[in-house]
Amino acid sequence: MKQKRVVEAVPNFSEGRRPEVIQSIVHAYDEVEGARVIDYSSDRDHNRSVVTIVGAPEAVSEALFRGIARAAELIDMDVQEGEHPRIGATDVVPFIPIQNVTMAEAVQLARDLAVRVGDELGIPVYLYAKAATRPDRELLSNIRKGQYEGLKRDLDAGKEDRLPDFGPAKLGKAGATVIGARPPLIAYNIYLTTSDVAIAKKIARAVRHSSGGLRNVQAMGVEVEGQAQVSMNLLDYTKTPVYRVTELVRREAAHYGVAIKNAELIGLIPQQALLDAAQWYLQLANVTPEIILENHLHD
Amino acid sequence: MKQKRVVEAVPNFSEGRRPEVIQSIVHAYDEVEGARVIDYSSDRDHNRSVVTIVGAPEAVSEALFRGIARAAELIDMDVQEGEHPRIGATDVVPFIPIQNVTMAEAVQLARDLAVRVGDELGIPVYLYAKAATRPDRELLSNIRKGQYEGLKRDLDAGKEDRLPDFGPAKLGKAGATVIGARPPLIAYNIYLTTSDVAIAKKIARAVRHSSGGLRNVQAMGVEVEGQAQVSMNLLDYTKTPVYRVTELVRREAAHYGVAIKNAELIGLIPQQALLDAAQWYLQLANVTPEIILENHLHD
Repeated sequence: MKQKRVVEAVPNFSEGRRPEVIQSIVHAYDEVEGARVIDYSSDRDHNRSVVTIVGAPEAVSEALFRGIARAAELIDMDVQEGEHPRIGATDVVPFIPIQNVTMAEAVQLARDLAVRVGDELGIPVYLYAKAATRPDRELLSNIRKGQYEGLKRDLDAGKEDRLPDFGPAKLGKAGATVIGARPPLIAYNIYLTTSDVAIAKKIARAVRHSSGGLRNVQAMGVEVEGQAQVSMNLLDYTKTPVYRVTELVRREAAHYGVAIKNAELIGLIPQQALLDAAQWYLQLANVTPEIILENHLHD
Repeated sequence: MKQKRVVEAVPNFSEGRRPEVIQSIVHAYDEVEGARVIDYSSDRDHNRSVVTIVGAPEAVSEALFRGIARAAELIDMDVQEGEHPRIGATDVVPFIPIQNVTMAEAVQLARDLAVRVGDELGIPVYLYAKAATRPDRELLSNIRKGQYEGLKRDLDAGKEDRLPDFGPAKLGKAGATVIGARPPLIAYNIYLTTSDVAIAKKIARAVRHSSGGLRNVQAMGVEVEGQAQVSMNLLDYTKTPVYRVTELVRREAAHYGVAIKNAELIGLIPQQALLDAAQWYLQLANVTPEIILENHLHD
């Protein structure tokens, strides 16, 4: 039994209005054998599109390079505008290890792509998240401060702390690109057996990292169609798993005399996050990839 | 997203001693493109081998046919002997739907293979389990009554209720083969926080079908290295899921003042059985194949 190596990448590019430009860039991402665009969506107000690519590491890297090159040809940051903060035609490109790939390997993929984009396309590249070269570049918002226009001014003024990790220290019309590696994000909502959104807000405060709760959890309490919901992003399910978050929400809810009505996942979830939950709740001692029948189907 | 169609088959053949014969038969099962032998094991005392094949339905059927033909060449039931009951060189062949294949389709695969084995190899075939043509042939033990020698006598005596479903009404040296379809079987053991095997036996009686418990559950209480264990076979996890069995065992155990220490799966488990458990425990409203990232990787 041998499982394929799989990474995901979620490039964001700064065009959400011109269909022919969006199509052309998505096609560039989708033309490499072994990588596949499995989803993309565009937002007119944000003037931005988000693409989801999966496949073999080398193929995904090549696809990303072609998409970045295409976006640089077709998007002029001097005239681009939209509600979403951005510094480049291809704004941000996270690599996400999915199967048989370590985070260290995803970081290396990010670095290798950054070198290529800097050298061959002449686009300044900043490394972020797990690939960051400095603590203050872990957060995207720090790198994107002042957006395209502000970064251009800072580089022209020779500000050292804004120098890119790779590529020229000067912005062309394609702007700069942020490349990095991060775990898969799980968007996860829990509905409560109450319409009282105040309870959802209290539970959100209890479980989220920013106010003293679990690391890797962002949460807010909202009302959805008359039901109180704890709406969460789980930023690293390997460290802070779905089942532990669920059980903490369940316990907090019980304190207020309510229960979990049901839950929902938004977007895609790595299979392992669900298998981890099964293993934990069933108290299974031995869930390895080998015992799962389907894992014997693929070379 | 399109998931491949996958069936499993677990042919049992009546040779567990002569390595060159075993190898030859296993190779016959493994030579068809699109089907793969993922496991096999032989037992000298039983003089029997069990092979696990997975792949596309048509490929698995062709592989099974070749294995049955090879076993008929190499095994002479007039001289074969062993502890395990048997009526043929290839004794029994269950088809097991795994992915994107219905039980009705697995039954049809069994029937089609039965026709081919009867017509082209001249081997009498009995259909069993979900493919049975009569209620008294659902159970393998009914069909195998009297074993090879007894069936031969009965057919020679013209006993109508023993006529095969397909093929000649006469046994050659290859004997007869039983072909059918059944759900995947899950071998599942739960360890209790006690060494008192009497409690495990009481819990086994409470949860198993034969003594009034859950359908599709076989269970017994045993002691394993000083720990009480409820040892179970789950015969249809789609109807009687792993999580429901687990929670019933947990409740019965609590009645005796003990808890579940941990659990283990023996052999292979269909991934869906674990995903179903995750969905149930997390109360997820929307687990479809589309939301699982890995399902987008394969054509």
